[in-house]
Amino acid sequence: MEITPPACLKRSLYVPNKTLMGPGPSNCSQRVLNSLSNPILGHLHPECLEIMDDIKEGIKYVFQTKNDATMCISGSGHAGMEAALCNLIEDGDVVLLGTTGLWGHRAAEMAKRYGGDVRFVESRFGRSLKLDEIEFAFEGHKPNIFFLAQGDSSTGILQRQLKEIGEICRKYNCLFVVDTVASLGGTEFYMDNWLVDVAYTGSQKVLGAPPGITPISFSKRAMKHIVERKTKVKVYYFDATLIGQYWNCFGGSRIYHHTISSTLLYGLRESLAQICAQGLASVIERHEQCSYRLQHGLSELGLEMFVPNANDRLPTVNTIKVPAGVDWRKVAEYTMRKYNLEISGGLGPTVEQVFRIGLMGENATFERVDLVLNVLHEAIQSSKRDVSEKSKI
Amino acid sequence: MEITPPACLKRSLYVPNKTLMGPGPSNCSQRVLNSLSNPILGHLHPECLEIMDDIKEGIKYVFQTKNDATMCISGSGHAGMEAALCNLIEDGDVVLLGTTGLWGHRAAEMAKRYGGDVRFVESRFGRSLKLDEIEFAFEGHKPNIFFLAQGDSSTGILQRQLKEIGEICRKYNCLFVVDTVASLGGTEFYMDNWLVDVAYTGSQKVLGAPPGITPISFSKRAMKHIVERKTKVKVYYFDATLIGQYWNCFGGSRIYHHTISSTLLYGLRESLAQICAQGLASVIERHEQCSYRLQHGLSELGLEMFVPNANDRLPTVNTIKVPAGVDWRKVAEYTMRKYNLEISGGLGPTVEQVFRIGLMGENATFERVDLVLNVLHEAIQSSKRDVSEKSKI
Repeated sequence: MEITPPACLKRSLYVPNKTLMGPGPSNCSQRVLNSLSNPILGHLHPECLEIMDDIKEGIKYVFQTKNDATMCISGSGHAGMEAALCNLIEDGDVVLLGTTGLWGHRAAEMAKRYGGDVRFVESRFGRSLKLDEIEFAFEGHKPNIFFLAQGDSSTGILQRQLKEIGEICRKYNCLFVVDTVASLGGTEFYMDNWLVDVAYTGSQKVLGAPPGITPISFSKRAMKHIVERKTKVKVYYFDATLIGQYWNCFGGSRIYHHTISSTLLYGLRESLAQICAQGLASVIERHEQCSYRLQHGLSELGLEMFVPNANDRLPTVNTIKVPAGVDWRKVAEYTMRKYNLEISGGLGPTVEQVFRIGLMGENATFERVDLVLNVLHEAIQSSKRDVSEKSKI
Repeated sequence: MEITPPACLKRSLYVPNKTLMGPGPSNCSQRVLNSLSNPILGHLHPECLEIMDDIKEGIKYVFQTKNDATMCISGSGHAGMEAALCNLIEDGDVVLLGTTGLWGHRAAEMAKRYGGDVRFVESRFGRSLKLDEIEFAFEGHKPNIFFLAQGDSSTGILQRQLKEIGEICRKYNCLFVVDTVASLGGTEFYMDNWLVDVAYTGSQKVLGAPPGITPISFSKRAMKHIVERKTKVKVYYFDATLIGQYWNCFGGSRIYHHTISSTLLYGLRESLAQICAQGLASVIERHEQCSYRLQHGLSELGLEMFVPNANDRLPTVNTIKVPAGVDWRKVAEYTMRKYNLEISGGLGPTVEQVFRIGLMGENATFERVDLVLNVLHEAIQSSKRDVSEKSKI
């Protein structure tokens, strides 16, 4: 054979244990990690299908929905976003994207590929969208589909008043897609009550499962729209009618669609079971309390939040202005090098401007909040010392 | 909250340990299973990127390629098939599908969604395609893209002469896509030498990793075609230029494309490390020897292979005619109930007609071959007894 075995694969696998307090993934519990070593199951074995049924019920609980068409996409959160959009969009559909940071633009990048006629309603920098801004955009654009991230992890903005936005969507006969990747479990979300048509979330954030499998739910209204499409959904792998058959969403027999990863099912099931045991309301309250404690601590350190209005702040991903004279990269490197603790810099519109501190799942505890405050303070002091020493030279 | 926590998630996770000798997934080694419980890593952490680099080298080895554009799709084998097709196809491209079973038709289903003008060259039932059949189809259809499964897991047919088919593709200026999901590691495959433009494989077959992550490689010629497309690749999640940047295939800086599942990376890395340690040639020989032993044993039991020509038989997925008077379903149920051992029935064109016995990865040992022969014999006898007892009544 011409190509020989690579030397790098003779080394042992090395995986350090880090405290993941960036915007995600977050740390998994030991219960979740242990579950991942279970033997593989076939994708149509009854024991596997039962785990999928358990997961389906767990997702309905965390989304607060009774939707039959509740399932998972076998891919990351990006795959969930793409699945939501490609099932709904047909050529020429007007897709209005509410943006409070990066994610509306990422959704636009996808929507265009599906033939969507893309429009934007953009919030003022660092703020959430106002209802009158949204309604004004609806009047102007007459969208078929409206997309919004409940929490934008690039800016740390939380969009409230989703119920009212759901009502605007109904009034204008528009489908309502909500990205809850970074927000679900860290703030309230009521899919049915808020008239949301498609919602998806990340497994690797508050839920605390590994990435690679993405819960998604479609309302009756969304499924009716999909079934009545003039053209087939462009992506076989993301086709909700086929995936839904496999997930037994519509009755009838299960049909093989793809080979699901039983490993990822184990992790997601266990993470949902932990949320159920704790109770969703209490999980949400814990995340909110942790964020308040963090914000209070940051203010005592003389640091300023990026999002000026406290009511617009996402509890799960907290954005903090990088103080003048501080190199965010040095701070992040310091916390990782010295404490194996991840703090992130900005992304998209907040690049170079903010630190992002994630408080999600296992990391949403007062202990972790106090840890990250101490470590951040130390790292900023150290980075300032570096600068002043250099200026002496 | 209106929706309460489901009772099913109060139960413990239950995962039986099965011997998976259907068409896949196959069993993972204990080394692979143990690796899955490692802590999560961020998708841009240097330790994660190093594991991705290791995997890339491992994939180059198993595909026998030097292609820079070697990476993984974060999805199942179906996602690999769809990624291969959607990167190449633009509206109106003539896509010729070589079919020796189900998979050419599944690829057609996808190709149509991407605007492909789909044509078929179908082998005679139970046989592989002949070179003159293929060349005749090329002359008639003048395809832009030719797709073929090296091994079709629905029929157990192995397509040989891929090198000659690669030459036909070059002669007709056509891109050559080979599905090696069920075949790679069980039979020879030389991506570069055989002039293959896109190849992908399943992680959960011979490699013996969990499903959910799919190795794929694009030739220089394929990448040139993709870069020169008139329209964007329709699926953001499958866009090889973006995924390749993240996998550091083209030099330059890595760009965040999606949150990769570090869990699945661990398993795939360890499975590739095991293949490297054993040596690919020896792995292939082991699979072939196991299939010969199985075929010999089946013949001693008076059973007949579905594929008449021994040279056309895929070593990894062995198809056996269901004997007259035997209910395949009862046989499969018996082996699962009594031995937790999976034997499958047919799929697509072979439904109700064959048993499928997988010999892949951990299950490609003489011990497992002898086990499955004994169990199959016992199950068939038991099923015949059932029938004769019923006929007495």
